[in-house]
Amino acid sequence: MSRAAITPEKEREYHDALKKALVAGQAILEQGGAALDAVTAAVVELENCPLFNAGYGAVLTSDGTHELDASIMDGKTLRSGAIADVHRIKNPILAARTILEKSRHVFFVGKGAERFAESEGLELVDPSYFSTPARKEQLLRVQRENPDAAILDHDGQALVAEQQVKSPAHPLDHDKKFGTVGAVALDQHGNLAAATSTGGITNKQVGRVGDSPIIGAGCYASNETCAVSGTGTGEMYIRTVAAYDIAARMKYAGQSLLKASHAVMFESIPSIGGKGGLIAVDNTGNIEMPFNTEGMYRGYARLGQAPVTEIY
Amino acid sequence: MSRAAITPEKEREYHDALKKALVAGQAILEQGGAALDAVTAAVVELENCPLFNAGYGAVLTSDGTHELDASIMDGKTLRSGAIADVHRIKNPILAARTILEKSRHVFFVGKGAERFAESEGLELVDPSYFSTPARKEQLLRVQRENPDAAILDHDGQALVAEQQVKSPAHPLDHDKKFGTVGAVALDQHGNLAAATSTGGITNKQVGRVGDSPIIGAGCYASNETCAVSGTGTGEMYIRTVAAYDIAARMKYAGQSLLKASHAVMFESIPSIGGKGGLIAVDNTGNIEMPFNTEGMYRGYARLGQAPVTEIY
Repeated sequence: MSRAAITPEKEREYHDALKKALVAGQAILEQGGAALDAVTAAVVELENCPLFNAGYGAVLTSDGTHELDASIMDGKTLRSGAIADVHRIKNPILAARTILEKSRHVFFVGKGAERFAESEGLELVDPSYFSTPARKEQLLRVQRENPDAAILDHDGQALVAEQQVKSPAHPLDHDKKFGTVGAVALDQHGNLAAATSTGGITNKQVGRVGDSPIIGAGCYASNETCAVSGTGTGEMYIRTVAAYDIAARMKYAGQSLLKASHAVMFESIPSIGGKGGLIAVDNTGNIEMPFNTEGMYRGYARLGQAPVTEIY
Repeated sequence: MSRAAITPEKEREYHDALKKALVAGQAILEQGGAALDAVTAAVVELENCPLFNAGYGAVLTSDGTHELDASIMDGKTLRSGAIADVHRIKNPILAARTILEKSRHVFFVGKGAERFAESEGLELVDPSYFSTPARKEQLLRVQRENPDAAILDHDGQALVAEQQVKSPAHPLDHDKKFGTVGAVALDQHGNLAAATSTGGITNKQVGRVGDSPIIGAGCYASNETCAVSGTGTGEMYIRTVAAYDIAARMKYAGQSLLKASHAVMFESIPSIGGKGGLIAVDNTGNIEMPFNTEGMYRGYARLGQAPVTEIY
């Protein structure tokens, strides 16, 4: 996102929302709970918050519809669950989690994914549940100003640049700038987990799926190395197998989480034109949250310490 | 597949079909053509052949429908294209290829993928095009004998075991045993490419997607290392990020294609209960085609040499 585009009041709202998600995960971990439960709880909070582009408040496709994607991975067992192109599941991350727990499969898409969620008793909603007035206005604005543009929700720099060309008098709307949500955690038993959830990109072509539901691209966890969740130009995260590449660099080249995550974020992804950020934690508790955009809403919480949230 | 289950006549048919695909790719490479064109041509041949579970002759879901998945990757540029859950695109690999060439996106699913294919002028067919009498009979047989079983099409051992328990008098149908198709190639310019296409698994739950359309899992290519296409229990290929893991072992641990591909096929994938096989070629022309099932239809062709095909 872009520094120029946000008021102090809005900044406070985002800090508060991030803290709420961090506290939800931290509470589970402090009681000896599982990393998998912590990332689930944190992402549910973010999905339920309209400030973020996942679940309630997700962005709209070029058809004015919602297409939600999510994935989750358990670093202890490598069990995984993922869904894409769903429209009626209130919390996509809970559907991904239920696939991980109950299905012999990993990935469901479209109506089949919704059928699975329904059969497992997950809460379904009318697709209109996800829409907020801000998101509808955002789609109309994008379509009016540049009908062919698919706007990556957190790509503040591109939006500012575009806005300055198109209509310099308009202040940039804060609600355009925040993307995919995710969480990673290490629990007291040494288990890692990662979760990612997104509403995609504003005005995107129907049916486009990014890295968020792709195990290895937008989500990965293994107790051997690290847990990673990504946000950005998903196509480049897919092509570089970004999340797993961090783990592979640690496992096979002996790189630290710092070195591996920075190589992926500042070398591999940009080398093919990609932008975004990622959050990662390794199996000894090191945390990295690199991004190559102007800002990324992020935070972390350690046991017995107040959560820390950051924007720029 | 299983040695017990195939007649010499059927074996010949499969050898011939594999040779046809190999010759299609070889002809392009011998003229100095691109690896990307060679793998596309080979997979189109396999999709059009009803003996294989991709395109025409794809297996049926529990609803009696077809859900086709495919992906392709260019090792020179890491450009990729993938589709999942499509029902009307005659050659799914051509849709994946068109995404790679023309879209800024990588992955489309469902009706959005079909809309993209239609807008690009790709040939659409009625879903009934993909059905063969053998596949319909296969679904009915599976549903009659074990309604909850989703049968991996090339998993001969499991089928033989199941068949022996369920109805030992029945010979195993050859048409149950052949899975996902794929091709990898190295061209005279040093460029690698990989392509994968599948009809999924017989009697599978609607909406389930395996590794075939997942870049990094069932398909990967990079000129730095190798090109890989996988077939098997897709869930385990996703969880181990199988195709990219081979490349990562070569890149970061300095492993040979032999060592890397065997580690993935005989250690990583089986360690979580996975079965199947893969084909791979590295950037110096080494070929590996390991599998941990009883057999795998496979073949290779070098410049100026007759194609070689194998089953067991």
